[in-house]
Amino acid sequence: MKSVAVLPGDGIGPEVVSAVLPVLDRMGLPLEFRFGEVGWTSWCETGNAVPQSTWDLLAETDTCLLGAITSKPLREAEAELAEHLRGTGLRYVSPVVQLRQKLSLYANVRPVADVHADRFAFSVIRENTEGLYAGLDFHGLGPALWDVVKDHPNAAATGPELTSATLRLQTQFGIDRLLRFGFEHARQNGYRLLSLADKPNVLRESSNHLRGRLELISQEYPEIETEILNVDALALWMVRRPERFGVIVAENMFGDILSDLGAGVMGGLGLAPSGNIGEHGSYFEPVHGSAPSMAGRQKANPMALFLTASQLLRHLDLPAPAEQIRSAVRAVARARRAVTYDLGGTATTPVAAAAVEKALSGT
Amino acid sequence: MKSVAVLPGDGIGPEVVSAVLPVLDRMGLPLEFRFGEVGWTSWCETGNAVPQSTWDLLAETDTCLLGAITSKPLREAEAELAEHLRGTGLRYVSPVVQLRQKLSLYANVRPVADVHADRFAFSVIRENTEGLYAGLDFHGLGPALWDVVKDHPNAAATGPELTSATLRLQTQFGIDRLLRFGFEHARQNGYRLLSLADKPNVLRESSNHLRGRLELISQEYPEIETEILNVDALALWMVRRPERFGVIVAENMFGDILSDLGAGVMGGLGLAPSGNIGEHGSYFEPVHGSAPSMAGRQKANPMALFLTASQLLRHLDLPAPAEQIRSAVRAVARARRAVTYDLGGTATTPVAAAAVEKALSGT
Ligand SMILES: CC(C)[C@H](C(=O)O)[C@@H](O)C(=O)O
Ligand SMILES: CC(C)[C@H](C(=O)O)[C@@H](O)C(=O)O
Repeated sequence: MKSVAVLPGDGIGPEVVSAVLPVLDRMGLPLEFRFGEVGWTSWCETGNAVPQSTWDLLAETDTCLLGAITSKPLREAEAELAEHLRGTGLRYVSPVVQLRQKLSLYANVRPVADVHADRFAFSVIRENTEGLYAGLDFHGLGPALWDVVKDHPNAAATGPELTSATLRLQTQFGIDRLLRFGFEHARQNGYRLLSLADKPNVLRESSNHLRGRLELISQEYPEIETEILNVDALALWMVRRPERFGVIVAENMFGDILSDLGAGVMGGLGLAPSGNIGEHGSYFEPVHGSAPSMAGRQKANPMALFLTASQLLRHLDLPAPAEQIRSAVRAVARARRAVTYDLGGTATTPVAAAAVEKALSGT
Repeated sequence: MKSVAVLPGDGIGPEVVSAVLPVLDRMGLPLEFRFGEVGWTSWCETGNAVPQSTWDLLAETDTCLLGAITSKPLREAEAELAEHLRGTGLRYVSPVVQLRQKLSLYANVRPVADVHADRFAFSVIRENTEGLYAGLDFHGLGPALWDVVKDHPNAAATGPELTSATLRLQTQFGIDRLLRFGFEHARQNGYRLLSLADKPNVLRESSNHLRGRLELISQEYPEIETEILNVDALALWMVRRPERFGVIVAENMFGDILSDLGAGVMGGLGLAPSGNIGEHGSYFEPVHGSAPSMAGRQKANPMALFLTASQLLRHLDLPAPAEQIRSAVRAVARARRAVTYDLGGTATTPVAAAAVEKALSGT
């Protein structure tokens, strides 16, 4: 019996969780679900977006299923929040970034599969702990950073006070474990090509580093072909020729963009699952956010959460129910009845979830 | 009479220039064309990717039309190049990056219009001189940069020698001129919405800076609505709902990705034009590269260069022939005869160019 922390979160998160979790429960999976709090609501109630009780829950469970989280205070709530924070030194730090960094969930895995017609299936593996997300973002530069940038004409025309600099950090530690993860993922899923998104003609030094590590580590995986693509070209090809890809590996910000783009290629956020995986933990979440403007209307597509649950089950070595859920989602998507607005239908969240449950028994 | 420097460049560059320029010439435009050298070929011949004669030509002409440039030494040629460079201290720096930075062509304008069916038309305006392209990319960190990153767990696990850091530079000088350019472009082209691509929930300090400037400068353009979108969401929406956009403004790397994506949304690189514009100069180029593997086969689509010429003509205040070329390209693309392989046809470069010329007389 494995245990799964369930964090419904904010906005449409609780709505899709309430629709999907009972279905999983009725499947009789060898799983115990334990609920916890996270996100904006939790911040407002406890002053903590990830309360200690949730960190404890995550430590006690095998993995975690997350609904959706508000990553940034809502505009209307900002003034109130600023008031709340004044003098406390606290700030609302995106809970997903907190989870990824504190639990060292370094690989963000986003499978992009054509639910409608099987024309493509690839995975974007995004680095989750460094890059531009390292938290090294500054406005108004001190002497050390100013010294690094001061010869650039725009900096010289501006001066240190009105200049911003963000560090994109890439460490050999971070690079190696990501590449290994990417190759292992390719091997396990039978992908023959690993494409690294980079910008070697512009970022010479860091790209050389990356290429060196890729060449070295790829020797351990002789059956997998590798290529380095410009991130801009990769974005274009993902839209024009998604069928050419197997595993795409990218640093944090490139991966953020490419994986949302993957959701676009799949047919939208209503279908896109993701997993955040490290040596000692993991959590799974739909790619969609909390969609505050849609919350409370039972309109959200529960399929992304079903596919996320499927990815979670595969991670827990339960491939049979994982495949069952995936097939059921595909059957409902293809029948095009009982689908939500984003897929051109009129079904509510519970109706769409019920259709998936019905299809489950047919598989 | 205005003068235009023509730099055919590398790979398919000379092929599309030879097909398109005679057509422009026969249109009897009030333009004088003057040819120059640039790129990889020029590097091999003179040791200089942008020779002094070309800088002189650019100083003497009103604007520039570029075919395509190899931005990076070809793999096969790398060993030879390394040999060539050893001890000279020289490196092959992407000529387009040189042109943009030295001539301070800070706005990269990429119009994305639906050539086939008029379902969408928007412009991506990309910052061209700072961001991750500022040339501040390091592998093996000295004490000053190491001090900034050393507390990050991945850095601590790696040490300074095997860590890379790239600075994303954003200056008030660079931000303000870009935003103004974006608003002016919106006003001139009748766009009502300006969308800024950013990542405010992650890059707090620099995004706050950006938002402050946007709020201030937008007051000068009360008729234009503004929004700040997460770059990942923007990428997804560009694919799913391109018709919602007017002007998209983005820092250099985000803009690089988004504008290639725009080419994808248009139907590929064979159709995508761009202009690089500053206070005291400009050059125009198709978004496509030199495509070495395709060179010498007369297969490249000349339409991107025709549309680029159209954008150039508009910039030189010649809207009538600009519109004439645009209509001719659209007519040929819609007829779907005499189109190149990328649009599903079998026409060669000269045949496709001849079709555009024929359509010109019909407009
Ligand atoms: C919410 C945000 C911080 C997050 C990210 O940028 O990683 C989201 O866009 C994602 O991709 O999971
Ligand atoms: C060739 C390369 C340096 C360039 C860039 O990254 O700007 C290209 O991709 C472009 O978009 O014009």
